[in-house]
Amino acid sequence: MAASASSLLADAASSSCGAISPRPRLLRGAPAAAFVPSPSRHSCCSLRASPARRHRSRFVASAVPTMQPPAESRVSTVVDVDLGDRSYPIYIGAGLLDEPDLLQRHVHGKRVLVVTNTTVAPLYLEKVAWALTHNNPNVSVESVILPDGEKYKDMDTLMKVFDKAVESRFDRRCTFVALGGGVIGDMCGFAAAAFLRGVNFIQIPTTLMAQVDSSVGGKTGINHPLGKNLIGAFYQPQCVLIDTDTLNTLPDRELASGIAEVVKYGLIRDAPFFEWQEKNMPELLAREPNALAYAIKRSCENKAEVVAQDEKESGLRATLNLGHTFGHVMAADMSHRLGWIDDSIKERVFAILKQAKLPIAPPETMTVEKFKNIIAVDKKVADGLLRLILLKGPLGRCVFTGDYDRNALDETLHAFCNN
Amino acid sequence: MAASASSLLADAASSSCGAISPRPRLLRGAPAAAFVPSPSRHSCCSLRASPARRHRSRFVASAVPTMQPPAESRVSTVVDVDLGDRSYPIYIGAGLLDEPDLLQRHVHGKRVLVVTNTTVAPLYLEKVAWALTHNNPNVSVESVILPDGEKYKDMDTLMKVFDKAVESRFDRRCTFVALGGGVIGDMCGFAAAAFLRGVNFIQIPTTLMAQVDSSVGGKTGINHPLGKNLIGAFYQPQCVLIDTDTLNTLPDRELASGIAEVVKYGLIRDAPFFEWQEKNMPELLAREPNALAYAIKRSCENKAEVVAQDEKESGLRATLNLGHTFGHVMAADMSHRLGWIDDSIKERVFAILKQAKLPIAPPETMTVEKFKNIIAVDKKVADGLLRLILLKGPLGRCVFTGDYDRNALDETLHAFCNN
Repeated sequence: MAASASSLLADAASSSCGAISPRPRLLRGAPAAAFVPSPSRHSCCSLRASPARRHRSRFVASAVPTMQPPAESRVSTVVDVDLGDRSYPIYIGAGLLDEPDLLQRHVHGKRVLVVTNTTVAPLYLEKVAWALTHNNPNVSVESVILPDGEKYKDMDTLMKVFDKAVESRFDRRCTFVALGGGVIGDMCGFAAAAFLRGVNFIQIPTTLMAQVDSSVGGKTGINHPLGKNLIGAFYQPQCVLIDTDTLNTLPDRELASGIAEVVKYGLIRDAPFFEWQEKNMPELLAREPNALAYAIKRSCENKAEVVAQDEKESGLRATLNLGHTFGHVMAADMSHRLGWIDDSIKERVFAILKQAKLPIAPPETMTVEKFKNIIAVDKKVADGLLRLILLKGPLGRCVFTGDYDRNALDETLHAFCNN
Repeated sequence: MAASASSLLADAASSSCGAISPRPRLLRGAPAAAFVPSPSRHSCCSLRASPARRHRSRFVASAVPTMQPPAESRVSTVVDVDLGDRSYPIYIGAGLLDEPDLLQRHVHGKRVLVVTNTTVAPLYLEKVAWALTHNNPNVSVESVILPDGEKYKDMDTLMKVFDKAVESRFDRRCTFVALGGGVIGDMCGFAAAAFLRGVNFIQIPTTLMAQVDSSVGGKTGINHPLGKNLIGAFYQPQCVLIDTDTLNTLPDRELASGIAEVVKYGLIRDAPFFEWQEKNMPELLAREPNALAYAIKRSCENKAEVVAQDEKESGLRATLNLGHTFGHVMAADMSHRLGWIDDSIKERVFAILKQAKLPIAPPETMTVEKFKNIIAVDKKVADGLLRLILLKGPLGRCVFTGDYDRNALDETLHAFCNN
C-alpha cells in the first residue's frame, strides 16, 4: 500500500529542505524569467512509496534563465490548501493518473461515482477508473456522463447526478470524483456537498482554467437562468489531482481561457509572476510542459494562500474575481480612469492579453444596458451596491471596493459596449 | 432599539443564577411529575430592553407536583445551541411574534424573504411581516408561498424559492425566514444554505414536530423521488423563534406527530422526561400551554445537547433518528427480541404511544418487501450495512449500531407488516 496522506505530510514537514515556505523565497536580483521549476533542488522530499518523485513546496527561484526539462519524468509538486480540518493537497505533475496510489489514498468507502462529460469521458474515464481500482478490488466505480457545456450547468443536469447516486444506492461512505473542466468540478462538488448532506469528493481537473482556478478553494455550484453560480456551496475536496498531460487534448480556446486566470493572479497579487508571464507567454501558448506546470503551481499557490485567509469570501477572496464581472482590460481601463494605476500598467495589461490572443472587448452584441442588467445580479452586490475588483497602486495590487466614482464605471461601459 | 443578541448573552452569562448549566440540575428524590417550568426562579435573567421576561436556562426541578401557571404572560425561555461560531438561541414562549425586537436583532441586511406555505400564510404571514418591519423602515419583506405538503418537498418547489430570490435581486446581505412546519423549515434552510452559497436564515416553526425537532440542529434538505431528505445541507439558523400560540391552530394529527418526537427524547436519553410524559400526556393532548412549553423546552434542550456534541452526525446524533427508520414500537419490539430491554420498557413504549393516540403499526398496505426496499436507501446505511437506533439497557438508553442479529430485524418486519 501507498503511504497515507498524513505520513506524506509528516515526511515533507520534517524534511530539512524547508520546502513549505509560507511565501515564495525570491533570490534578489534574479531575472524575472528565472522563476522556473527546479525539481532537482527538492530531492529531500521524495516519496519512497511511490515511483514518482514528489515535491511539497512553494517554489524556489533559480538563476538559470531558460526553461529546463525535469530531471526525470513523473515529478509532481504538492501545494497545500491550509484550511484546518478541511485542508487538502493539490498534486501537480505529468502522468499522475498513472499512479493509482495517489488517488486511492483519498477514496473513502468502497464506492466511487465519477462525474464527467461526453467530451472528457472517451479520453480519460477508463484511465481514471483503472487508477481507482488497480490492485484495489474492494472499490467499485460507477459513472455519470453529463452533456458538455456551460449551458448544462443547471439544476436539471445536477439532478442526473443525484438520480444516479440514489438509484445505485450510494450511502454516506462513498466518494464523488469530478473528472473534467470547471463546469464538471462545480457540479460534482455541489452534488457531493448536498448528497446525503455531504460526501467525500476528489477533483481531477482536465482544463487549464479548472487546474489554476475553479478546482481549488471549494466553490461549487450551478447557474440559475438569470445568473451564473447563484446556487451552490463552499465545499472542499479531499484532494485535487492535476495531471498536466490532460492539457495535451485541450482546445486552444480553452487553453486561452485558463491563461486569463493565470494572468489574473499576477495582476491582483504577484508582480514577479506577471513579469514571468510577460516573458514566457510564447512557451505557455506552445504548451511547453514545464512552463505550464510552473504557471499551474504558482497559480494554485496564490489561490491557496488567499483561500486559506478567507475561505467564505468575506473580503480578500473576492479579489480572485478580477475579470469575472467584466474583463481584465475593462478593470484596468476603469482603474486608470479613476487615477488608481499609471499608463504603463494599463498598457501592460492590454499587451499581455493580446499576446495571449485573448479578447480585449466584450462581444459585439453587448450593450451598456445589457451589461448593467447582468452585473445587477452579480454575487458581489451587497445591499444594492456593486463592489468591483480594481487595480490600484503598483503592479500586483488591487482593491475590492464599492467606493468608486460611478461616472468612471459608466465611462468604461460606454467605451467597451455599444449603446 | 432592542438589546443586541450579544449583550443578551453577556447579561445571561454574567448573572449569578447560573441558569446555563451544562446538564439539568435534578433535585434528588423529587417526584418525576415535578419537572415543570418554574420561571419565578429566574428573574435574575430578565431582559430590561423587552417587555417580556426571558429565562436563559436549562430547566430546574421543582418540588411542586402540579403544573403551575407562569407568573406573567409572555415569559420566554432561551435554549442555547452551542456550536462555536455557529451557536444560536432558541426562544420559546407564548406571544413571541408580538415582540418585533426578538426577530429584528437576528436579521442581516435590509431584505427578508419569508418562505411559507398556503396553509400557514393566511394565519401568520402578516404578523411575521409586521414583526420584521415594525419601527424598522429600512427592512423590506417579500414572501414566497409554496404548496403545503411533504410531496412538495422536492427540487421543483425548491427552485421557486431560488427564482423568487434571484428575480427580486436579493444579494448576500439578506435573510431567509422559514415560517411553517418541518417541510418549510427544511426547504427554506436548504435554500438559504445554497443561495449565493449561503445567506442568513431564521426558523419560525409553527408545528410541534418542527418546534421540538426539525427546526433545531441545522439539518436541511429536500426529498428525492426514491427517498426522504437525500439532498440537503447541514446549515444552522441565526435563531429559532417558537411562539407556542401557533399551536392553537395545529390539527390534531400534526400535534400527535410532534408528540412522537417528544416521546423519542425520553426513550433515547432522558428517562425522567419520559416519566413526566407518562404522567402529563392528557395535558399535552389537551394543549395545556405550560405542558406544551415544558415539553418543547426539554426536547430542545435534549436536541441541543446532542447536536452540540455531534453536529454532522458522525455517531451520537444518529440516535435522534429513533422512530425514523421504523416506528418507536418496532424499535422497541426488535430491541426486546434481541434481549436488550426488558418486558416492562416495551410495554411502556406501547402504552405511551396508545395514550398519545399514535399509530402502533405501519399502514395496512405496507409489506415486508416494500419496507426492505425503503430502508435500503436510508441515510444510515454505511458500506451497505443498515445501522439502527435500538433501545438497550434501562429506560432512556439506546444504541446506534449495525451489529445486531438480522433474524430479529426480519422477525420484527414480519410481525408488523403484511407478507
